[in-house]
Parts: sequence; C-alpha cells; structure tokens
Amino acid sequence: MILTDALLDFFLETRQHTESICQPLEIEDYVVQPIVDVSPPKWHLGHTTWFFEEFILKPHAKDYVEFHADFSFVFNSYYETVGKRVVRSDRGNLSRPSVKKVYEYRNHVTQAIKGFFSGPQSEELRAVLEIGIHHEKQHQELLLTDIKYILGNNPLLPVYSEQFQDHPKEIHAQDWIAVDGGLYEIGHATESFCYDNELGRHKVYLQPYEISNKLVTNGEFAAFILDGGYQRFDLWHAEGWDWVNQNQIKAPLYWHQINGEWHHYTAQGLQKLDLETPVTHISYFEAFAYAQWKGHRLPTEFEWEVAQAFFPWGKRWEWTESAYLPYPNYQKPDGALGEYNGKFMVSQKVLRGGSVATPEKHTRHTYRNFFHPQLRWQFTGLRLAK
Amino acid sequence: MILTDALLDFFLETRQHTESICQPLEIEDYVVQPIVDVSPPKWHLGHTTWFFEEFILKPHAKDYVEFHADFSFVFNSYYETVGKRVVRSDRGNLSRPSVKKVYEYRNHVTQAIKGFFSGPQSEELRAVLEIGIHHEKQHQELLLTDIKYILGNNPLLPVYSEQFQDHPKEIHAQDWIAVDGGLYEIGHATESFCYDNELGRHKVYLQPYEISNKLVTNGEFAAFILDGGYQRFDLWHAEGWDWVNQNQIKAPLYWHQINGEWHHYTAQGLQKLDLETPVTHISYFEAFAYAQWKGHRLPTEFEWEVAQAFFPWGKRWEWTESAYLPYPNYQKPDGALGEYNGKFMVSQKVLRGGSVATPEKHTRHTYRNFFHPQLRWQFTGLRLAK
Amino acid sequence: MILTDALLDFFLETRQHTESICQPLEIEDYVVQPIVDVSPPKWHLGHTTWFFEEFILKPHAKDYVEFHADFSFVFNSYYETVGKRVVRSDRGNLSRPSVKKVYEYRNHVTQAIKGFFSGPQSEELRAVLEIGIHHEKQHQELLLTDIKYILGNNPLLPVYSEQFQDHPKEIHAQDWIAVDGGLYEIGHATESFCYDNELGRHKVYLQPYEISNKLVTNGEFAAFILDGGYQRFDLWHAEGWDWVNQNQIKAPLYWHQINGEWHHYTAQGLQKLDLETPVTHISYFEAFAYAQWKGHRLPTEFEWEVAQAFFPWGKRWEWTESAYLPYPNYQKPDGALGEYNGKFMVSQKVLRGGSVATPEKHTRHTYRNFFHPQLRWQFTGLRLAK
Amino acid sequence: MILTDALLDFFLETRQHTESICQPLEIEDYVVQPIVDVSPPKWHLGHTTWFFEEFILKPHAKDYVEFHADFSFVFNSYYETVGKRVVRSDRGNLSRPSVKKVYEYRNHVTQAIKGFFSGPQSEELRAVLEIGIHHEKQHQELLLTDIKYILGNNPLLPVYSEQFQDHPKEIHAQDWIAVDGGLYEIGHATESFCYDNELGRHKVYLQPYEISNKLVTNGEFAAFILDGGYQRFDLWHAEGWDWVNQNQIKAPLYWHQINGEWHHYTAQGLQKLDLETPVTHISYFEAFAYAQWKGHRLPTEFEWEVAQAFFPWGKRWEWTESAYLPYPNYQKPDGALGEYNGKFMVSQKVLRGGSVATPEKHTRHTYRNFFHPQLRWQFTGLRLAK
Repeated sequence: MILTDALLDFFLETRQHTESICQPLEIEDYVVQPIVDVSPPKWHLGHTTWFFEEFILKPHAKDYVEFHADFSFVFNSYYETVGKRVVRSDRGNLSRPSVKKVYEYRNHVTQAIKGFFSGPQSEELRAVLEIGIHHEKQHQELLLTDIKYILGNNPLLPVYSEQFQDHPKEIHAQDWIAVDGGLYEIGHATESFCYDNELGRHKVYLQPYEISNKLVTNGEFAAFILDGGYQRFDLWHAEGWDWVNQNQIKAPLYWHQINGEWHHYTAQGLQKLDLETPVTHISYFEAFAYAQWKGHRLPTEFEWEVAQAFFPWGKRWEWTESAYLPYPNYQKPDGALGEYNGKFMVSQKVLRGGSVATPEKHTRHTYRNFFHPQLRWQFTGLRLAK
Repeated sequence: MILTDALLDFFLETRQHTESICQPLEIEDYVVQPIVDVSPPKWHLGHTTWFFEEFILKPHAKDYVEFHADFSFVFNSYYETVGKRVVRSDRGNLSRPSVKKVYEYRNHVTQAIKGFFSGPQSEELRAVLEIGIHHEKQHQELLLTDIKYILGNNPLLPVYSEQFQDHPKEIHAQDWIAVDGGLYEIGHATESFCYDNELGRHKVYLQPYEISNKLVTNGEFAAFILDGGYQRFDLWHAEGWDWVNQNQIKAPLYWHQINGEWHHYTAQGLQKLDLETPVTHISYFEAFAYAQWKGHRLPTEFEWEVAQAFFPWGKRWEWTESAYLPYPNYQKPDGALGEYNGKFMVSQKVLRGGSVATPEKHTRHTYRNFFHPQLRWQFTGLRLAK
Repeated sequence: MILTDALLDFFLETRQHTESICQPLEIEDYVVQPIVDVSPPKWHLGHTTWFFEEFILKPHAKDYVEFHADFSFVFNSYYETVGKRVVRSDRGNLSRPSVKKVYEYRNHVTQAIKGFFSGPQSEELRAVLEIGIHHEKQHQELLLTDIKYILGNNPLLPVYSEQFQDHPKEIHAQDWIAVDGGLYEIGHATESFCYDNELGRHKVYLQPYEISNKLVTNGEFAAFILDGGYQRFDLWHAEGWDWVNQNQIKAPLYWHQINGEWHHYTAQGLQKLDLETPVTHISYFEAFAYAQWKGHRLPTEFEWEVAQAFFPWGKRWEWTESAYLPYPNYQKPDGALGEYNGKFMVSQKVLRGGSVATPEKHTRHTYRNFFHPQLRWQFTGLRLAK
Repeated sequence: MILTDALLDFFLETRQHTESICQPLEIEDYVVQPIVDVSPPKWHLGHTTWFFEEFILKPHAKDYVEFHADFSFVFNSYYETVGKRVVRSDRGNLSRPSVKKVYEYRNHVTQAIKGFFSGPQSEELRAVLEIGIHHEKQHQELLLTDIKYILGNNPLLPVYSEQFQDHPKEIHAQDWIAVDGGLYEIGHATESFCYDNELGRHKVYLQPYEISNKLVTNGEFAAFILDGGYQRFDLWHAEGWDWVNQNQIKAPLYWHQINGEWHHYTAQGLQKLDLETPVTHISYFEAFAYAQWKGHRLPTEFEWEVAQAFFPWGKRWEWTESAYLPYPNYQKPDGALGEYNGKFMVSQKVLRGGSVATPEKHTRHTYRNFFHPQLRWQFTGLRLAK
C-alpha cells in the first residue's frame, strides 16, 4: 500500500493533470457530445470528482458539506447502486452546471479530500482513494480521445494543441519474435495497484507462436485500402461486413482523401498522412480484416502479455483476438465498486498496451482494456502474430 | 415599401433585440440542442446573420469581404439551393465557431449592411432586406422557445430572466362570439409586409359559428387531466393516441406534479401552476382532445381571422383545425426565397395569433404559423369554437 | 333505407365477391404481410366477417353461437372500444387460424346473418348491416391492392389473373374544363348510403378554375423522370424530398428498368410499360412534384367534386391538394362505429374518384378516400388543375 | 471417409427426416417468420436443397438441369460468394414458391444426387456431400425450434405433435464432479466428420474445478424468479440488464403465468410448468444471472469438454462462459465453404452438448454451437460450475 503522503501527492498531481488536458479548450468545447460514446469534457471533470465525493467524502468525512444536492444525479455514470443517473445519451444536452461551476466543484472536493487525508485514515479508505485516482486517470485518456472527436468532427477542424503529439513514428525494422509453446503465468503478480480484472494470476498453455516487434503503420494500412480491402467480404467477419456497409466505412476514422491524397486529422489539425506512424482509430473489425489480408492474425491477450518485454509498446492500444472474460477465480468486489469491471465481461474485445493518450503510471503489462469491436475513437492499433 | 432610413432603423433595432434575448445566457447555453426541433442559440445568431450575407452582401455588395469561408456551410438551414448544410440534428454537436466568434460575425455583417444601405439600393434589395428582418424576428421567437427548452429540460431548472413574463393571466369572463354565415375575404390586403403564404386575398364561405372570447386556461386543462382525458382513447385522433402512449404523455410540457400538486417551469423557474394563465406547450393532439372532451371544437383558420377583432389575442399561438395549405393562386417566389414557405405545405397544422415570445410588429391577423401536430415547445394554446 | 330482401341480396353478393377475389391465390399467398400497410388476405377475410359477428350477431342474435372465442382478438383491427387486438405489424406472423378455418368462419357468420335477417329487424340493425357491407367492399379494394403487393414484390413476379385488367388505357384527347367561380354545394345529398365523413352538405366558395378531362399517363410521367424530376429538390415538398432520398425513389412503385426500357408489374405479370395507361402507384409527393414540373397544380377535393360530371373517372384514385378534415357540422357517430372515420382526420390527404380495384356500387362522387402522403400501394393517380 | 453407399443412405435418411419434421404442419405454418432469427420452414426445406444443387450438381453434374433459375437467389442464405440473396428479414414475405413447388424441388435434387453418386465420385465431392448432410441436420434442429416459435407465438397456441417430447425430466440427484487442474487436449481427434471450428486439437491448461452432474431445472429457476432475480441489477451484465428492461423480460421464453401459476408452451401445447424438466429457452444473460444468484458460475467450454463423460447430456444446449473464438491454428476452408463458421467468430457465446431437437449422429462432445447472448428460441439450458 502506498504511504498516505505519496498517495496525496499522486492525487493532487492527477487532479491537476486532468485540468491541464482541458487547458486548450474553449468553454463551448466542454459541452457537446457528438456521439453517445463521447462524453462532454465538462462531464468528465464532474464525474471524476463525484467519485471521490460519493465513495469517500459523503459516507466517511463527518463535516463534509455537499457541494450541490443535484450533482450526484448529474455526474453519476452507470452505478446502478447509487440511484438514478442522467441517461448517457443526454449528457450533451446539459448546458448547466456551467464550466465555471464544475471547476468550483472540483476545487471544493479536491480541498476536502486533501483535508480528510491529512489525518490518519484506514487502509480501506486509502484503497478507495487509490481506485479513485486510477479512475480519474482512465478518464484522462477518455478526455483526450473525446476532445479529439469533438474537434475532429467539427467542420472547422480546429487545432487542439501544438504540444500533444498523437502520431509518433514507428521507424524500427519489422521482425518476428518467436516464443516457445508451454505454460505461462498470466495476470498481476505484485502488491502494487491493479484492477480486479487483472487477478488472479493463473497458468495458461500457449502453442508456439511469433509476434511482430512493430505496429502496423499508416503506410501499410493504406496499401490494404488500395488493394480493395474494404470491398472484399471474405476478409471480414459477417458483423464487420455489415458494419462496413451500413456505415459506408472506407478508411480509418479521421482519414480524409483530398484531391486523391490521404490526410488525417491530428492534435495539430489536418495534415498529410504520415506513413510511418502506426495506424490508429481502427475498429477490431478493421484490425482483423487487415490481418486476414496479410495472411496473419491478431495475437491473443496472453501471447501479448508473455512477449511484451521484447517490443516497445505504449503508442496504441492494440486489439487482440481475445474476448473480454473473467480470469479463473475472478472475484467481483462488493458494493458499488463491484460494478467497475465485471459487468462489462460480455461482447467486448480485449486491448493491450496503452496509447499516447494514456497517462503516466496508468497502464502496465497486465492491464486489460476493453471495447466493443466496432469502436474506433480511441487510439487503437494493431500488431500482427502468426 | 418602407423608406430606406426607416428600414435601416428597423434592421438595427432587430439585430439588437436578438442579442438582448441572449443576454441572460451562460456561454454553455448557446451550444446545446436537446431535441432536433430546438436549435442552439449560437446557431440562431449565426443563421440570421448568414441570411443577410448570403442573399444581399455576397451577391450584391462589391467590396464585401466574407467573414469566414466555412460559415455559409455551418449556418445554412434548409436552403437546398445554396449548397450543402449541416444536418439539422447535428447543430448541437458543434462547439466551434465559438460564441465570441459568432458575435464578431454578427457585427461584421451588421456593419456591412449598414454601409451598403447608406447608399441608394434597388427596391428589390430593400425587399430582401425586409424579408431578412422578418426572418430574424421569426428566429427571435424560436430563440426564446428554444432557450426555454434548453433550461427547462435541465435538471437544475435554472431561471432565464425575472423580466420576461411567459405566463400572463386570462382573467376576463368567458363568452361566445357569434358570427353569421356568409362570404368573407381572407388573406393579406394592404401594401405592408407579409409572407407569400398570406397571399392572395380570396373569398371563403363560412357557416354560422361561435368562437370563444377567451383562451382555455391552466385551471380548465387541469380539470381535463383530472377527468382522465389522457386515458380516454375516444377523445383522440388515432395518431394522437399513439403519440400519447409512446411518449407517456400525461400533462402539457413543463408541468411537474410534486407531492400531488401541479407546478410548471416558467422563465422565472419552477412555480406552482397558475390556474388563470392560458394553458400552453400543448400539441395539436391535446388541443383537439380537450375540445372533444368539452363537446366543442377548434376553429378553422378562416373562422379565427374573421372574428379576431372581437377578442384580445397575442398571448399564445392558437392551434386551428386547418391544415397548412396554399391559398388559391398561391405563387411560390423564384429562387432560394421560394423555399421559404411553400415546401412545408403538407402534414402541418395552422396556428394563428402570436405569443408572448413573438416580437413586436412581427405578427398580424393574417399571419399563418404552422407546426407538426405533435410539437409543443412553442407557446401554443387553444381557443374553442362551436 | 334499402328493403331487407334487397339488403340481404346485397350482403350475399358482397360476401361472394370477396371470395372470388381470392380465388386465384395459393394458400401461401393468404398469409404474408410484406409491409405494415398490407394485410394478409386471410386477415381481410376474417376481419370483414368479425365485423358482422361483433356488431350484429353477438350483441343482438340471441341463439348465436360464437365460432371461436379467440377470433375477436385475432381479427379486430383498430377498434379500441372492443378490447385488445393483434398489433397491426404482427398480422403476417400468424399461420393459424388456417385458411380453411377462416372460410368456415366466413360461412358460419354468413349463414347466421342470413338467418337473423330472415326475421324482421330494426332499422338500426339494418343500418349496421349496410355499413358492414360497405366495410367489406372497402376491404375488397384493399384485398386487391394487398394481393398485388404480395405478388409484385415476390422475386418470381407471379401472375394474379388474366381477367383482372389493372391498366386500362386513357386514350381521349386532353382538354381543360373551365369552371366558374362561385358558391357550390359539397357533400352527400340523397337518402342513399354514405359515410359519416361525406356529411353534412355545405356551401363552398370556389375561385374560377380549370381541370383536366384526362388523367396523367405513364408516358407523360416517364417524361418527368427523363427530365430529372426525381433529382430536382425545387419540385418537392421538404418531406417529399426526404422521402425520395431516404427510400431512393426513382420511379412509381412496380416500375422496373430492364436493359434501359421501362416495364411495370401488372395483374398479368411483368409487361412493357403501357404509355397510354394512366400512371398509378404514385405517392402524393410524386403527384405534387409532377404538377409543379408541369407548371400546374392538383385540384382541391371541392374542385374535383364540382367538375366530376364532365370527365370519366373511376380508373385511379386521384390525389387532391385537400387535407382530410371534417366538414362543417361533422358528427362523429356514437360507440365503436364512431371510430370509423373521424379519428383519422389528421396528417392525411384526400383522394377522390375510385379505381379499377373499387367494387361496383362502392364509390360515388362525394366519396372521400384518404391516405398518408407517402403511400403508393393503392391504385393512386393524378389529374391536373390550374 | 465414409463409403459411398453408406453416405448415400445417410443422405436419403437425412432428407427423409427433414420432411418428417414438417409432417404435422399446415401449409400456412411453412410460410411465416415472426422474428428475424426464425426462418419459415419452407425456406429451410429449400435452402438445404439449394446447398446440394449449388455446391455439387451445378458445378459438377454435367447433365444436371437446374430446377428453377431464380431459386438460387431465393434460397441462398448468407453466402456472399454465391451472388445476391433475399435479405434474411424478408424470408417471411415470400408466399412463392409454394410449399408444393418446394417439395418438387427437394425431390428433383434428391433424385439427381442419388443418380450422381451412383457412379464413382472423387473424395472431395464425397466430402462436400457429407458437409451438405450435416448442414441439413443443423437445419433440422433449427426447423424444430423455428416451428416451436411459430406455433408458440400464435395466440391459439396449437399443438405441434403428441410424439415429440421437448421437456424430458432431469430426476437424478444433483452432485458436483471434481476435476483436477492440469493440461488437457481439446478439439476433434478422430477421422470422423467434424466442422472446421472443432480443429485443431490443442492443449489447454485448466485450474481445478467442479461441475454439476445435473442441469438446472424449471423448479430451481422458478425460485430465482420468486426471489426477484429479474429485478436485481447486481446479478446481470450491463448489457443483460438493458436487455431485461427494454424487453420487459420476466421469465424464460414460453412461460405464462395464469392465475398465479406458471405454465409453459410445449410441443403438446400449453401445460402446467414441469418442475423437474431442465429449464430451457433462456438467454446467456439469464443463465449467467442465475449462476451469480447461486454463487456459482458457468463452465468454460473446455471444462465442459473435459468433464462431459461424467454426466448425461443431450437434452439442452448448455451456455458456457466461453466466447466463440478460433482454436489455435484454425484454418478457414477455401471458397464458399470457408464462410461456414469462421466469419461468425465474434460477439457470440459457445454452447455445448446438444438438445432434444438435435438429430441423431449430429452432435458430439467436441461440437461447438454458438449464438448471440440474448437469443433464447433454441432449447438452451444451464449447468453450473464452481
């Protein structure tokens, strides 16, 4: 368990970082929700705050004065345990509370937590605080991808920031890493923080396999498009093929063909497509179709975890072939926190790695991200296996 | 035709009034679109400006410098003639241009029009300017009702303004005005401004009828609810009955039952229901069902026009039994302005009168408003006939 | 009032005619419901029977033994007064009762009515019988159009019957009939049968107008298509334009372009388009757009009624510009029969005339048919006015 | 490889059995499609026939005369390789070809196959014939469940057959079978027929576990309902909870509460709920929620396969916790048959076992069935593990 002082520093630094992500925004950017998967930045600011208020301050801090009686309704996300909530698709319809009020709310709760943890608190409460910090770090990643979607779908294609680099190159030579078949240990092993879904550590038998040391790049993906990859049904799952046709998908998200040349929207605005950047903003369906086209396949999450030390990772969340399922002996935590991960363990695919949007100290090699197979507003990518 | 000077005053005063309607708003309130019928205030500010730029400045003012190349795309509403436009349901997804930028756009165009009409201009152009002013006045009304929807559907139910009185009482005694059968002239008769749909003036034969001198009040409508009006299918059109059931309609929009007592959301926030205010925010379906319940009916738009001098009006747009259809010899104007009214002449009902949200000098006794029968975010109301 | 004997003959002949319409069908054709507007022929056979059982035999014939307890649930259409009913969109999901059973049900009720009216019955009951007969005649028309849809949307395009001629030519020369302005009487005038919506007779003032003596033909409509009529937004209502684009409408229903040549599906199967047949299976939106393209307009229902003696009619139901509204002094009948017409008086357009599918003695010059503006599976057509 | 004679016998017996399943039907029952997942029996009869025509007779039998040029369009299911097909949701809209014609088609193809395989044919072709037979056996199972749905959703609740017993009891005492942790071989091992998705055989490491020797019964599931299982969100996946609420699910499919007592629709019509029958017609979501409620879990497909020899199975397809994914070294067959299984390997759950509807010799202990988690018209059931 982290010491209280270190934990408080971690908390304050995390709270500050969330706000620095929003620093380039206009007030108007905080409000909109162009698709249901994207939440307004204002909502992220409030919801991460609500977590500390709801699970620490309100039940445990005796003198705590609630900031606003209605905020627990406005900023609850999906915790059925904690009463009614604004329907997810309605978040972008709320102009109030104002951005200014939400920052006041943040400050109110940050100060209250700081005060509360100045005194001695139980290990249980420190554990909840640590979860709350990691919860906020998860939302930092969503904040960045949601902001990208909000700006990248605006017809004016505004710049987010000259500093944030969302298309790092992948310039080392491609090679295959061979791994022997055999029994391997999977899952979180140390005392440090992890989510419930990374436990318990267990044996998995793997067949011998090879995995690429390099992510698939924009240049390689452009070759797939040029070869008619989006028109060849035999490369796709039946559901993927329906998705391609119903949504008229012809390229990754944010790609624009202008006068016959590919461009992509980045944090610095619209730019000519960078061929050496790892491809991103693709769905699992597209990752799978690309692998089929290449005659290879996606790795399982276990193959990825076993081999991860042999390649650089952290630029793109990498789609795996694995479905998001509980590990053997998975224990759902009690109470509201039990809703955190377990209830999503159906119909989703596991992603491994972490991306340019992942905050420091947030991901690790046992971390399991998960999304529905058609989603692509995250910085998703693709590594081949065979 | 109005003289140029008077027209320019009218223009400047109208531009100013639009902005004064938005004065109480937070920046966030300018951005959202909770239902497809409601547009973000920011969009109204831009769209009314775009009209002057598109139809006067760009084609006719030689030295005019366009404010921003993409705004004609962003702020076009439904004019197919003038190229692509943002899909109506996407207006609330646009955080940019910012509110500040939109006000700069307004100012840029207001000044350019002022300059342009300082010199002599043709009667045709003055006529387009006059249409543009009336177009903006129409949007002032929508602005108010859209703002009410944005605030009135926010769980915090914020106050809009203490000044704007949206629930004026109707305290005179109810009486029936009897009108003889016979031939009457209908439609706009003078040289002053009117819309194409009010022309041409023509004869209509009316049977003898009676029409109420008073709008139906909240108190009377509450009696309809208490008597089970929303549960009696025989009072409703088949489409109305489906609408009631699919949307679980149990009262006018903005009515809330709290501890067994009716409240309504007003410009001053949530208040106890005012029984003497004319009922508002009802659909045509509800107006019709109420009339059925009373054993009466709605007047036609012709009956209303003939009798209007005998009762005070202007508090509520009043649903009539008439469908929105062209008058005999209706002429659709040429070009983009031809899209103004004619293309909506199907599936809608006529409303007559004007409401508390209607700007001064905007409505008149021949004015024909029109909405689909299920809509109720306007200040709609109901007058009985028999 | 018709004498009982004549009424019974009328009844028996109507019952027989319904069955003769179904004579060419395979059993399978009786069951399906390819779109919600089309009912399975089996359902029409049962529903028209249910009407006599529900409104005459069950309440009034003392010794009547109900054929099957569940049939009143299965064959009720939209009469909310008479309890639950199978949702309209589910009719095609019911394989039972079998066709054989439905014919037994028909026979059971036909015989019971025959027996019941062998004795003396009240004028009220004879009036209900007459309504039931006309109700069945309305369904005969629907039966024919529903059968055409069922067969005409089958990829095998089977022939319905060599006898039934659904594309009669319109070969007389086109001419305009001029009608003076003035007051005219509209609505049903005699003692013979009519529906509630044709009453009461009342005066209407008409401006002078001209109306064509001839329906628009396939050949003329093909010219509209060739001239790009389906691509010119300025010819369409806004709702019509959305309908065209969402449904990719490019020609009337049942038209097929094969190797560059127009064909149409008829009761005799697929045939080369007959240029001299009046165009049919068009929506109101298409009729309106055609008239706009020609520089003319559709007549109102009143203009049609006043002029109808001067042109042959009865081949196509003709779209009018009139909305379906109650006449002045319209009285909704009491009880379940009150649901017959009045509750549909919103959002629909009036059609006048009658079509090749209309049974003898069913339509008349005051008859008001009505459909939503996008529907086109009826034998709808178009006559111009100016 | 089976000898040709034995294969032909297998073929003829399979063809005959399909028709015997339909023997109790009325012609009308062959036509309807009450939900998209259910196909009309007529379609199954044609589609299984089309398979032999398309993949054997048309490409390989020189003198074969195609039965009807349009049938390959009408009866193709999802094979994109083989050209256009009737959209799945439209199958119930086709009254033609008639049932009689479809039986003629069956006979035509059966005889042609018989003739063709009287002479010597290659091993490849015999393999395709064998796949075709197994394909038809799969459809026999679907036929039975689709027929049950067609009749069981008819308000008359007709009896299918007194012979077919779809609710066999589960009367042995419940016990737990303990299995040691360790490496196990999974997948098809012998030369006999299997599908591509059962290959290749591979090692899986299992933790020690226990699995029930008995399926969960109706009586046990009724206790879950009584205890409020359908109202407790903490027992459900988030997607499952949405499904329960959107569809108002309160019990397994075909359960009816009549005067406070549970009944279920069976092949013999509506009966009082049999408490000792294994529960069936439940979704994966319901199976999972039941297991949560019991404090246990569902087995993985590997746990099931390893333990299957120790319990009787074959009454219900059993939901497992496993997602439907390719085995290591899975090879998708070339050509149209490659579309058979691989393209469905996303978003579905594996079921193991086989049911009362599974034809003899069709399932085996390595057989992998798969459905989306919300489906329940199959004879699905549930076995607990821990």
